[in-house]
Amino acid sequence: MAELAGADQKAALDAAQAAATKQGDTVRSLKALQKDNKADKAEVDAAIAKLKELKASAQAKQEAYADVAGKAAGQSKEAFRAAMAETLQRRMFYVPSFKIYGAVAGFYDYGPPGCAVKQNLTALWRKHFVLEENMLEVECPSVTPEVVLKASGHVERFTDFMVTDVVTHDCHRADHLLEAALEARLADTKAPPSVEDHEALRNELATVEELDAAALGAALRRHGVKAPDTGNDISEPFPFNLMFRTSIGPKGDQVGYLRPETAQGIFVNFKDLLYYNGGRLPFAAAQIGQSYRNEIAPRAGLLRVREFTQAEIEHFCNPADKSHPKFASIAAVEPLLFSRELQMGAEKLPKPMSLGEAVDKGIIANQTLAYFIGRTYLFMVAAGVTPSRLRFRQHLVHEMAHYAEDCWDAEVECSYGWIECAGLADRSAYDLRAHSAKSGQDLTAYEKFPEMRTVDVMVVTPNKQLVGKTFKRDARAVQDALEALGEEDAACLQDQLKSGPAKLTAAEGQVFEVTPAMVDVSRVQRKLAGRNFTPSVIEPSFGVGRIIYCLLEHCYYTREGDEKRAVFGLVPLIAPIKASVFPLVNNPQLADAARALSAALTVGGLANVVDTTAVSIGRRYARTDELGVPFGLTVDRQTLDDGTVTLRERDSTSQVRVGSAEAPALLQRLTNMSLTWMEVQATFPAQQTADAAE
Amino acid sequence: MAELAGADQKAALDAAQAAATKQGDTVRSLKALQKDNKADKAEVDAAIAKLKELKASAQAKQEAYADVAGKAAGQSKEAFRAAMAETLQRRMFYVPSFKIYGAVAGFYDYGPPGCAVKQNLTALWRKHFVLEENMLEVECPSVTPEVVLKASGHVERFTDFMVTDVVTHDCHRADHLLEAALEARLADTKAPPSVEDHEALRNELATVEELDAAALGAALRRHGVKAPDTGNDISEPFPFNLMFRTSIGPKGDQVGYLRPETAQGIFVNFKDLLYYNGGRLPFAAAQIGQSYRNEIAPRAGLLRVREFTQAEIEHFCNPADKSHPKFASIAAVEPLLFSRELQMGAEKLPKPMSLGEAVDKGIIANQTLAYFIGRTYLFMVAAGVTPSRLRFRQHLVHEMAHYAEDCWDAEVECSYGWIECAGLADRSAYDLRAHSAKSGQDLTAYEKFPEMRTVDVMVVTPNKQLVGKTFKRDARAVQDALEALGEEDAACLQDQLKSGPAKLTAAEGQVFEVTPAMVDVSRVQRKLAGRNFTPSVIEPSFGVGRIIYCLLEHCYYTREGDEKRAVFGLVPLIAPIKASVFPLVNNPQLADAARALSAALTVGGLANVVDTTAVSIGRRYARTDELGVPFGLTVDRQTLDDGTVTLRERDSTSQVRVGSAEAPALLQRLTNMSLTWMEVQATFPAQQTADAAE
Repeated sequence: MAELAGADQKAALDAAQAAATKQGDTVRSLKALQKDNKADKAEVDAAIAKLKELKASAQAKQEAYADVAGKAAGQSKEAFRAAMAETLQRRMFYVPSFKIYGAVAGFYDYGPPGCAVKQNLTALWRKHFVLEENMLEVECPSVTPEVVLKASGHVERFTDFMVTDVVTHDCHRADHLLEAALEARLADTKAPPSVEDHEALRNELATVEELDAAALGAALRRHGVKAPDTGNDISEPFPFNLMFRTSIGPKGDQVGYLRPETAQGIFVNFKDLLYYNGGRLPFAAAQIGQSYRNEIAPRAGLLRVREFTQAEIEHFCNPADKSHPKFASIAAVEPLLFSRELQMGAEKLPKPMSLGEAVDKGIIANQTLAYFIGRTYLFMVAAGVTPSRLRFRQHLVHEMAHYAEDCWDAEVECSYGWIECAGLADRSAYDLRAHSAKSGQDLTAYEKFPEMRTVDVMVVTPNKQLVGKTFKRDARAVQDALEALGEEDAACLQDQLKSGPAKLTAAEGQVFEVTPAMVDVSRVQRKLAGRNFTPSVIEPSFGVGRIIYCLLEHCYYTREGDEKRAVFGLVPLIAPIKASVFPLVNNPQLADAARALSAALTVGGLANVVDTTAVSIGRRYARTDELGVPFGLTVDRQTLDDGTVTLRERDSTSQVRVGSAEAPALLQRLTNMSLTWMEVQATFPAQQTADAAE
Repeated sequence: MAELAGADQKAALDAAQAAATKQGDTVRSLKALQKDNKADKAEVDAAIAKLKELKASAQAKQEAYADVAGKAAGQSKEAFRAAMAETLQRRMFYVPSFKIYGAVAGFYDYGPPGCAVKQNLTALWRKHFVLEENMLEVECPSVTPEVVLKASGHVERFTDFMVTDVVTHDCHRADHLLEAALEARLADTKAPPSVEDHEALRNELATVEELDAAALGAALRRHGVKAPDTGNDISEPFPFNLMFRTSIGPKGDQVGYLRPETAQGIFVNFKDLLYYNGGRLPFAAAQIGQSYRNEIAPRAGLLRVREFTQAEIEHFCNPADKSHPKFASIAAVEPLLFSRELQMGAEKLPKPMSLGEAVDKGIIANQTLAYFIGRTYLFMVAAGVTPSRLRFRQHLVHEMAHYAEDCWDAEVECSYGWIECAGLADRSAYDLRAHSAKSGQDLTAYEKFPEMRTVDVMVVTPNKQLVGKTFKRDARAVQDALEALGEEDAACLQDQLKSGPAKLTAAEGQVFEVTPAMVDVSRVQRKLAGRNFTPSVIEPSFGVGRIIYCLLEHCYYTREGDEKRAVFGLVPLIAPIKASVFPLVNNPQLADAARALSAALTVGGLANVVDTTAVSIGRRYARTDELGVPFGLTVDRQTLDDGTVTLRERDSTSQVRVGSAEAPALLQRLTNMSLTWMEVQATFPAQQTADAAE
C-alpha cells in the first residue's frame, strides 16, 4: 500500500483549519460586541473577509489532502482497512473480547491506548456539552425493569427481522440477506441486468430498510434467496427483539432488560431534574453509559456491536418556544447539510450552509435543533473528524417516527461508507407523555404567563348521582376518566354527545358508554396566570465507539516513502499518550534525567512513557507514531550541559530545542490545544531534523 | 439534631492534616536524597521531628473533631443518617431508580451532584493509580459468556444462602435471618440471656458468615427462626447464584451473565497485555466499570446494590520476587492496621503502624501488597475519608480462599459500622492458572535468568509404539497427557511407576492406566537461560459507591447554632461544583459581571453555577453549602469600581477580597489542592464576614 496520505498535506491542512477556526471565533466575538455597540461594522467586515480567505485556503488544502488520502483509500478500501486493523489490534487499541475462549461476536475490549482515547473523547464531550452548557448529568443503571421499556415502546418495537435456516436453524438478518442478493445481482458480470432492471434493483436496494415482514418475505422469495453457506431454504421473516433479557431478584418473576439506550433513565427522572433546576425550562440533562443490543449478526467491527457506549442529551423546552439563547454563537457555523431536498435532488450531494440560513429558510425546524447541530459539528471537528467527511443528513419524512418533528444524523465517511455517529431529533413531547401515561405521574412543567390570559377551556362536570346509579362499583373509574379528559378529548366528547351516547375509555382500558345526561361538557372563559404543559424533547445522541472508529480511519496514514511506518495522527487532546521520553544513549545520567522529566510530566497530568529500549531513535519514533503519540522528548548529551531537550512533533517530524524545565507546561498547552505547533516553532530554535536517520 | 460537628474544628483539622501530609512528603524526599548522599542525617532527623510534632497536633485536632462528630452521631445514628439521606435525596445526589414506577430495590440513579462527585472520584483514582503508576487500563464488556465465569468459579460458587417462606415463597437471606434472631435474643430485656448464653450467642453471631448450608439450617431450626412479617415456616437454606443471567445471540443457546466483577476481563487479556508491556514483569492493569450482583435482599442504600461501579487493579509479578521498586515512597505511611493478631487479641483494636515496619515484621506478606495498602490509604485520605475512621483489616486465615497468600480490607467507619470499601489480596497464581486450564492457552511469562542455571528437570519420554498398540485411537490423548505433565506430576508418576502401573488423567478427563514399559520418566540436569512461570496477582479492588457513601457521611455536618443548615464539607477536588457566583443586588451590570466571571471559570474547566435568585445572600450560601460547593464568589457594587469580588470558603465561612480576573486561576489551584485556604488568607485582604447576615 503506497503512502495513504502525506504527512505534509496533513500538517498544512491542520494548520489552515486551526487558523480558520480561530478566525471564526474572532468573528463571532466581534459580532457579539457589535450587538452591544462595542465594535464597528468595518472591523467586523474585515474580520469576515479574512475568515473567508482562510476558509478558502483550508478548503484547498482539504482537497489536496483528501485527494492523497482518497486516492490511496480508493485503490483498495479493503487493503487500507486491513492494514489499519492490523495496527489497531497489534497495538491493542481494541481486541475481540474473550479471545482466549474463541471470542464472542459483537464484543470488543478496549486495550490501553483505545481506553485512553475513549476517556479523552468522553472528557472532551463532557467539557464541550455538560460543562459549557451547564447540563444536568445523571448516571442510571443498565438493568431496567420491563415496565419502563414497555412505556418507551422498546418491548414491542425494538426489533429486527430475522430468518432461520430451516435445516440448521442458524439465524440471519432478513434485510442483510436481501441486500446481499440485490448487490450480487447488480454486480453480476456474466448475465448483467438490463438498464431497466438495474434501475429497479437499485431502487429496491435503497428501500430495503422500509419493508415490513410480509414485504421482506415476498422480496426474498422473488429473488430466490437461500441461507448463506448451506444453500438451504429460509423461514419467513419474523421480528426478533434486540434487548438482552434477564430477571431481577431471587424469585425470578420480575423481567428486566439491559437498556437499549441511556435516554430512558433521563426521562423517568424528569420531574426530579426539573425540581433540581428550580422548575425552570429549558434545561438539558445528559448521560454517558453503556447500552446493549443483542444484534442478530454483528459485523463491521466497532460499528455494530452488542455492548457500546452512548452519550445522550435530552434538552427539555417549551414546545411553543424552541429558540435558543446561544444560537447566535453558532449561526455562522457552516457544516455540510444534506437536507431532504438535496437528497431528493438530481445531484444527491450535501452542501455547506450556515446554520443561521438553514433556520431562516426553514430547512432545520428550529433554533435549538440547529444549535445542537452546530455544537455537534464543533465537537466532532475538535475531536479530529475531517470536516469534509462529516455531513448532517436530514431524515426523509417516512424515516421519522410519527411524533418526530425533525431529525438529522451526523454521518461520518469511512471505508464502510457514511456512518451515523450521532442522531439529533426533535422528539416533541412523545417520551414524557408515554411515561406519564404508563406511570400515572404528572410529567408536565408549569409556565407562568407574562400577564394573565383569558382563554377558552373545556370544563367537564359529571352528574355524580346518575353516574353512581348507572355504573355502581365502576362509577369511580368513569368519574375519574371524565375528569382526566384533556382539552381535545373533551371537545371530541362534547361533539359526540350532541348526537347521543358516546364511548369513554377508563385508565385500566375498560370502555363505558356515557349519555348526555351523565355529563356536562362546556367551553368557558377563564383567566389564567399560567399553564401546565408537557415539554418537548430535543435529543442529540452520540455513539462513542463509532466516532472513535471513524476518527482512527481519518487520522491513519503511513509515512511517505515507507509504507510500513503507520501513524495515527490523533489530535493531541485525544491522543492516548501525550509524550514519549527517549534517553538517546545508554548512559545512567541520561536515564535519570529522562525519568525526572517523565515524573514532571506525570505531575502535570500528562500521560507519558519512557522508552529506554536499545534500538535506534528512528525505530523508537516509529513505535510511538503507531500509538498516535503527538510529541517526543529526546534527552541527549546536550541535556546534561544546558538542560535542553529536543521536542519533536509527530506529523511534521520537525523538532525544536526547549528547556527541560519548561517542557511540561509547554506540553500541557499543546495538549489542551491552546498553543499550536506553529507557535512553538516560531518561539524555539529549530533542531536539525534527523529524518534520514529515523 | 444539634450541631453534628463544628465547622471550626473541621477547618482546623483539615489544615493540620494538610500540614502533616506536606511534611511527610518532605521527609520522604529527604530520605530519598539521603540514600544518594544528597542530604545529611541531621537534616532528615530535623524533618522527622517536625513531622512527629505536626502529626501529634493533627491527632489532637482529629480527636477534638471526632469528639464533636461522634457525640452527635452517637446520640442517634439513625437520626443522623435520616437527616443526611433527606438532604441527599432532596438535592438529588442519588435517588432510587425508576421511582415513577415505584422503584426497584438495589438500584440507584446518581443525580447531577452525585454524578459529578463520582466523576471526580474516579478521575482522582485514575490519576493516583493509572497515571502515576503507568498502569494499563482496559475496558471490557459487562456481558460475559458462561465459560469465562465457569473458569473463574463464579458459576459454581458465587452464591448466597437463601430460604423461602413456605407459604408465600418470599425469599430471604438465610444469614440475615439468623443474625437478626441472634441480635434480638442478645437484646432481649424481658428474659435476658445468662452470662454464658450471652457469650455463646456473641460467638455464634461472629461466625454466621462461615456456616455452610447444613449448619445454617441447623442453627435456624435451633433458634426457631420463622419468616419475617408472616411468621410462616421457612425452607432449608440453599445456594442462590447472584449473577444476572442472560442469553447472547439470536439462537438463545449461548448463556451469558452480567459480570460480577471487572477483574476477569483483565485476566483473559493477560497475554496481550504482557505483549503490550514488551513482555516485562511486573506490570499492573486496571479497569473501572459496572459490575452486577442480583442480591437476594438489597439494603443499606448505596452499600449493597445490584449494579455498582468497581475500580480494580491486577498487578502481575514474579512469585519469587514481590518487592516493589517504589516501596520506599510509602514505607513511612502509618495507617491503622488491624492485623490477625490484633483481631484475636484482648483489646480488638487496630493500631497505627508504618508499612515499613509491618513488612519487616512479616505482618503484611510482601512489599507489593503493602505498597498498595499505602497507596490506597493516600487515595482515601486525598478523597476526604477521615484517617481515624479508615482501617486495614487483615483476613483471618479461615476467611481467605485456599489459594490466597494474604488479604487486607480497607474498612471505613460509617453509621452502618465498619464497611469494606476496598479489598487488597495477594491471589497467587490462581486466576491465570484457572483460565489457562479452561482455555488451553499458555498464560505464563518468561523470566531470563541473570546467568545460565543448571537445574534438575523431569523428562517424560513415552514409548510411542507400545502406547499406540495399547490404546489405539486413544493413543494420541495418552501421549499428549504424558508430555503435558508438569514437574510435580511427573515426579509423582515416576514414584508410582516404581511399584507398577499408574493412573493418568487425559485432557478430556478420561483416566488411563500406564505401565512402566510405556513411559520413561527420569530426572536430568539441564542448563537453562530462563524459565516460564505463571505470574502472581496482587489485586486491589475498590467499590466506588461505597467510598462515596462513606465520604458523604464523613463530611456532612450542620452549622453551629443552626441545625437546619446542612453542609457537605467535600474536599474541593471531589466537590461536584467548584464555585457559586452570586451577583449581590438586582442590577443588570452586576448580572453581566457575574456571567462573565462564570464564563471565565468554565473556560478554566471549573464547574460553577450563577445564583441570581432574589433571596438573601445567606440563604443562597446555605443552598450551595448543601451541595458541597467549596467556594463562593460574590459580585457587588465594589466590583464595578475596582474589579474585585468576595471569595468565601465554605467550612470556615471566612472571606477575602480578590481580583475578578485572577479568581479563575486561584480557584483552579484551590481545587486541585496545590494551594490551601490558609495560604489564600495570608495573601489577600480579609473581607468582613457577614455571618450574622447569612
